[in-house]
Amino acid sequence: MQHASEASPRCPIEGLLDIVGDRWSILILRDAFYGVRRFDGFQQHLGVSKKVLAQRLRAMTAAGILKRTAYQQRPPRFEYRLTAKGQDLFPILLSMSRWGNRWLAEPDREWLLLRHKDCGNIVEARLVCSHCGGPMTPARVKAIAGPAASKQDIESLTQAVRKSRA
Amino acid sequence: MQHASEASPRCPIEGLLDIVGDRWSILILRDAFYGVRRFDGFQQHLGVSKKVLAQRLRAMTAAGILKRTAYQQRPPRFEYRLTAKGQDLFPILLSMSRWGNRWLAEPDREWLLLRHKDCGNIVEARLVCSHCGGPMTPARVKAIAGPAASKQDIESLTQAVRKSRA
Repeated sequence: MQHASEASPRCPIEGLLDIVGDRWSILILRDAFYGVRRFDGFQQHLGVSKKVLAQRLRAMTAAGILKRTAYQQRPPRFEYRLTAKGQDLFPILLSMSRWGNRWLAEPDREWLLLRHKDCGNIVEARLVCSHCGGPMTPARVKAIAGPAASKQDIESLTQAVRKSRA
Repeated sequence: MQHASEASPRCPIEGLLDIVGDRWSILILRDAFYGVRRFDGFQQHLGVSKKVLAQRLRAMTAAGILKRTAYQQRPPRFEYRLTAKGQDLFPILLSMSRWGNRWLAEPDREWLLLRHKDCGNIVEARLVCSHCGGPMTPARVKAIAGPAASKQDIESLTQAVRKSRA
């Protein structure tokens, strides 16, 4: 995987991309949310090479997104389940799926529909504010550098934005 | 970019990954949401090669995510702004940022804080149902094949899931 930063990530998105920043990882996660757990299952549905699949499963297990457990002893066989950290990637996958359905599908020709079990309806996922419940659109959100932001990065970003307004 | 599917995407997530399925595209989008618009600005802040940056900007412009407009005539200079289709990727970036802050940052050492302008608080983004407003967690959502889903893919996925429960 490519790294924009040489050392530690400069922002939470870079940090995430260090772990699941490629197509196969996202597709493996998608299938894990569908309930696929075993190597053969991922391999068969994704059509990914065994080498790449093994590498991605190893990396996501090391990152604590998947947990590897034996489901059979002789011969040893393992399955991969999403941990709490992995389950918490659901909003990202759901947002991706919403965008694809909305912008890439023919009208009324979605690939995938989501039924919300609580209300029973076919619904969309919507991103709202954890405090007031209002919509979180680009215009309604202000990003503020947190304690871990590097001064150098803030300055570099500020310059890049200012340059765009010159 | 790698393609899991040879022809058309099998699901909305694959469709999205065909367009922005790599690290650099996501980081360019992140910077675009911060207000970066010009080639030099992206290049300086990301430290990406000019060749890769030009290729990604071209691909995202062709996909209708960015719009390229001249801001200067002699010599001609262009800027890249998010279209409505591009702005609608915001929930994905916001969900990524939330996950990174929550799982990768040291306690109370986030890289980035989000202030919701409507309520004025430092908040998190939360994914809810467009119908009832309830939480959209993996356990509360049921995926249903839509009209564009291929029978072959549904069968292949069903088998992969069944195999994982054997």
